[in-house]
Amino acid sequence: METELSKKLGVEHAIFGFTPFPAVAAAISRAGGFGVLGAVRYTAPGDLARDLDWMQEHTGGKPYGLDVVMPAKKVEGVSEADVEAMIPEGHRRFVEETLAKHGVPAMPEGEASGWRITGWMEQVARSQLDVAFDYPIKLLANALGSPPADVISRAHDRGVLVAALAGSAKHARRHAEAGIDIVVAQGYEAGGHTGEIASMVLTPEVVDAVGPLPVLAAGGIGSGEQMAAGLALGAQGVWLGSVWLTTTEADLHSRALTGKLLAAGSGDTVRSRALTGKPARQLRTEWTDAWDDPSGPGTLPMPLQGLLVADAVSRIQKHEIEPLLGTPVGQIVGRMNAERSVQQVFDDLTRGFERAVDRINRIAGRSQA
Amino acid sequence: METELSKKLGVEHAIFGFTPFPAVAAAISRAGGFGVLGAVRYTAPGDLARDLDWMQEHTGGKPYGLDVVMPAKKVEGVSEADVEAMIPEGHRRFVEETLAKHGVPAMPEGEASGWRITGWMEQVARSQLDVAFDYPIKLLANALGSPPADVISRAHDRGVLVAALAGSAKHARRHAEAGIDIVVAQGYEAGGHTGEIASMVLTPEVVDAVGPLPVLAAGGIGSGEQMAAGLALGAQGVWLGSVWLTTTEADLHSRALTGKLLAAGSGDTVRSRALTGKPARQLRTEWTDAWDDPSGPGTLPMPLQGLLVADAVSRIQKHEIEPLLGTPVGQIVGRMNAERSVQQVFDDLTRGFERAVDRINRIAGRSQA
Repeated sequence: METELSKKLGVEHAIFGFTPFPAVAAAISRAGGFGVLGAVRYTAPGDLARDLDWMQEHTGGKPYGLDVVMPAKKVEGVSEADVEAMIPEGHRRFVEETLAKHGVPAMPEGEASGWRITGWMEQVARSQLDVAFDYPIKLLANALGSPPADVISRAHDRGVLVAALAGSAKHARRHAEAGIDIVVAQGYEAGGHTGEIASMVLTPEVVDAVGPLPVLAAGGIGSGEQMAAGLALGAQGVWLGSVWLTTTEADLHSRALTGKLLAAGSGDTVRSRALTGKPARQLRTEWTDAWDDPSGPGTLPMPLQGLLVADAVSRIQKHEIEPLLGTPVGQIVGRMNAERSVQQVFDDLTRGFERAVDRINRIAGRSQA
Repeated sequence: METELSKKLGVEHAIFGFTPFPAVAAAISRAGGFGVLGAVRYTAPGDLARDLDWMQEHTGGKPYGLDVVMPAKKVEGVSEADVEAMIPEGHRRFVEETLAKHGVPAMPEGEASGWRITGWMEQVARSQLDVAFDYPIKLLANALGSPPADVISRAHDRGVLVAALAGSAKHARRHAEAGIDIVVAQGYEAGGHTGEIASMVLTPEVVDAVGPLPVLAAGGIGSGEQMAAGLALGAQGVWLGSVWLTTTEADLHSRALTGKLLAAGSGDTVRSRALTGKPARQLRTEWTDAWDDPSGPGTLPMPLQGLLVADAVSRIQKHEIEPLLGTPVGQIVGRMNAERSVQQVFDDLTRGFERAVDRINRIAGRSQA
């Protein structure tokens, strides 16, 4: 599975795997794909350095990348405390009431909330970059618009390619104008932040909008057949996130959550603002239902919502409160029915891809292929 | 482009074209695809017979089919008048107020509403079938669940294959159990009634659920690359509806509507209950906005909503009231930017398919293909 982009990055397969788990990212790179470590959960720069050290030791010299969440617009001199102060009291009450209804205990004494998505704060993302640029990362991806111009220059000075996610051709064009190198076309069916346009329509639209810039197809891809579909649509590679969540190398810290993912069908996700304030696809739970209920207070805009629910989400995860327990995941969760190693996922992907190519050649009457 | 199903039906390309226009359906069959005429608009059996006579003369002996909207559940002894009586007065007022706000005139004296989707009433669909079975149709498709058992038997007795649309694997399984022959997997991005699951995820899920029964991929398909993607996902053919709306053979009766379709982007559709009471993707207009506005009365369930708005939609179309003027159409409307003949669409589809196959073979390292 070779494209211009996979050649440029020196990987065997044009399969990009996004994951918050270093063990998964390293295994993806070792398997011949391109592992991209999500940095949003790292608030202390020391933690990121520790995990990048680990990546260096466990990728066997194979290339890998980092995904940050960095807003293109600067908000000067605004601290986390300033933002916290903007959260209405009624919303805080709603969080506590919803937790109380399900008997969610507080965090154990002395244990900090492990799940604060403060990586979206520009200063946090910048401190992550200061760390990351000390490592030989080959790709810097931004999940939230184009990165600021100085970050793009800094990456390019170090020979690091820059990718940005886009949910529409318009966003993709804006990324291209900002000087990024790769657009990840993230379809409606994807896990995490998504727009309204499904991959089948979005991928070729983005390819047309930014070509010859390489495009990765993201959203709805978890099998080799779906990879073939994404590549047929003009992508130079595929970007998979959800499928790694149930690999044996993933560390969800919750067997209950793994169980929910393995049991969920493709109809069991929802595009909800409950997690960050922007529509993000995730498991539908009583927690997302509470936020999406018109009789409730509704969600706050990004970044307020993320700050508002950070501790609550940590408590739900820590105590594995099943009805509320969720995670960002795409519609392919319906096919994630058994735990596999990253290498097994890769073998299934490449075998399925070859099957799909055989099939399409038969249909096209190219039996020699 | 040959699959088991296309061979069985005796068509050159596994391209199924759904359209309410006989001239388009006939041109699709003549071009080597399989034209499927939508019957929902035919209320007088004589009109359907007239158009099927025309089809017979203009398909050059090529096979074609018919699409009806027939509920699986019978509602005995309920007339259109009984259903009309169930519509609340407040909703009727809302229709008139919304029309008045945009200065929509009444229908001209003596001109009947041309747009009454009463085809969903079982008695109407059955009278359509009485007509249709006198013609050598090769396929009967049902847009609303599985057809009743006696209709399936009647079709099979005449050697007519039966297809049904499904938006989930669960619905597809129900169709298979009912004894239908083909499942049309209709993705979220499709025009008309759709579920929440996008084609990239839905198609392989339905293939797995009902195989070896043939599946057609529907939703998001308007180019050869998208056809290749649908076939890579395991479909035995593709089902296209939207792309024909802007062909030169289509008769939308409104240049303003054609203009809106040509100008619309992929983000200009909405899944709204405004037209029928069930979520159906269509152009987003001030009409759909009014129905989807939480401050309005909201839509009624099927079939009430369709009856409620039938005359209003006719008036909007007749007088071409641009802000309100819409039609069911999928997200591929963003690529429908020029009027083409059906034959040109076919040429573009087959050329694009060959391009996609070349591309996928290059990526797979099968350069001889």
